[in-house]
Amino acid sequence: MADRPTPSSVPTGDPAAAWRGRRRRHDHGSKRDAVIRTAARAFDERGYHNTSLDDIAAALGVTKPTIYYYVPNKEQLLFECFRAGLEPIRGALLQAEQANGSGRERLRAVIRDYALAIASEYGWCMVRAEHQDLGPELGAQVRALKSEIDRGIRRLVQTGMADGSIAVTDAKLAAFAIAGALNWIAHWFRAGRSLSSAQVADSFVQFLEHGLAPRPAPGPVSQPSRVRRNRLKPKA
Amino acid sequence: MADRPTPSSVPTGDPAAAWRGRRRRHDHGSKRDAVIRTAARAFDERGYHNTSLDDIAAALGVTKPTIYYYVPNKEQLLFECFRAGLEPIRGALLQAEQANGSGRERLRAVIRDYALAIASEYGWCMVRAEHQDLGPELGAQVRALKSEIDRGIRRLVQTGMADGSIAVTDAKLAAFAIAGALNWIAHWFRAGRSLSSAQVADSFVQFLEHGLAPRPAPGPVSQPSRVRRNRLKPKA
Repeated sequence: MADRPTPSSVPTGDPAAAWRGRRRRHDHGSKRDAVIRTAARAFDERGYHNTSLDDIAAALGVTKPTIYYYVPNKEQLLFECFRAGLEPIRGALLQAEQANGSGRERLRAVIRDYALAIASEYGWCMVRAEHQDLGPELGAQVRALKSEIDRGIRRLVQTGMADGSIAVTDAKLAAFAIAGALNWIAHWFRAGRSLSSAQVADSFVQFLEHGLAPRPAPGPVSQPSRVRRNRLKPKA
Repeated sequence: MADRPTPSSVPTGDPAAAWRGRRRRHDHGSKRDAVIRTAARAFDERGYHNTSLDDIAAALGVTKPTIYYYVPNKEQLLFECFRAGLEPIRGALLQAEQANGSGRERLRAVIRDYALAIASEYGWCMVRAEHQDLGPELGAQVRALKSEIDRGIRRLVQTGMADGSIAVTDAKLAAFAIAGALNWIAHWFRAGRSLSSAQVADSFVQFLEHGLAPRPAPGPVSQPSRVRRNRLKPKA
């Protein structure tokens, strides 16, 4: 796990440092964060079922009882990983709902923060973890949080449809397609390779913006869009 | 599991019927298919780790040794589920590569078949199963098959970029975004609800087509696209 590079969008460095270094008296919160971040990386690398609390303790250089001091069990750890990745997206949605601008402009900011979150070490947990592994109570919480985000994106798409800045026919399907394109980043993105998470986020903003923006309707004056479409049309 | 409706795009009915009914002497192939289909539904519903071969045998009304007659273990079953969902997409890609038409037109057919495959009962295995659960050899085969599909879509996007039918700046990211939007169908689609798999496939074809098609460039004659963009621009 030590050789896994960290995404450039998140605090870098070795989480185990929370137990070492000059500043020895780290607070409870930062150590708990280190446990969650280390678990996220381990789940991503080996899968949830193939990772034990012993593995996580070993990666942090602490004992298993130390882990239990911060989280009661592996299920809660999976839930905390999910929540850590989700919070920035919820924050972006809240900001977008209070912001000025068209629906598409406000959605743009959410798409960017969503992409960054999925390209972080929490991406795997947010996207690939199974609800079934969380038990009924935490599983229901995860479903509720995911549903909240889905609804938030759908509302922004609907806002854009209403103000003319977004041209799609079905807000629900469009929101699922956007979320799917973004969530899939967790399946292929690996930090430290050719693209940074910021570059990926920028590219997705550009790609999805292009797909959502309305096309000029054929005007009654010159009908130029038909002319141009013919010009661009490939020779099949 | 019996009350889980089957997607309308796949052969319907109870897989356990392969062991019953008028035509008692079903061949080895159809019984093996029934085992794989039943496993796919069970994995989708409960997760791979929470499903035993006993569960699958019980759903089919057969004994566990009967299951072992068709597949050596649960890992192989997961692999076969993946392969069953993947083959139609590979077929569509092969057809597209031999077809006439622009890159976008050929990609359209692949997007449709891809959406149908993901909305089938094999969607979960194709999208959500973990490579780590498959062991090194089958895991490598799955990665190779997924990679083949990724490259096929990317080639079609590149073809469309070259012939002017697709307007994106990065074929690799565009292919990942398309695959992600489609793969995500496995996370939200449930057969038998408001939309059929064919309707979902049609909507995704339309949505992605819109996103990929080139926009009319501002022409030197009348620059009507700027005029129209202002007309459509929302009052922020």
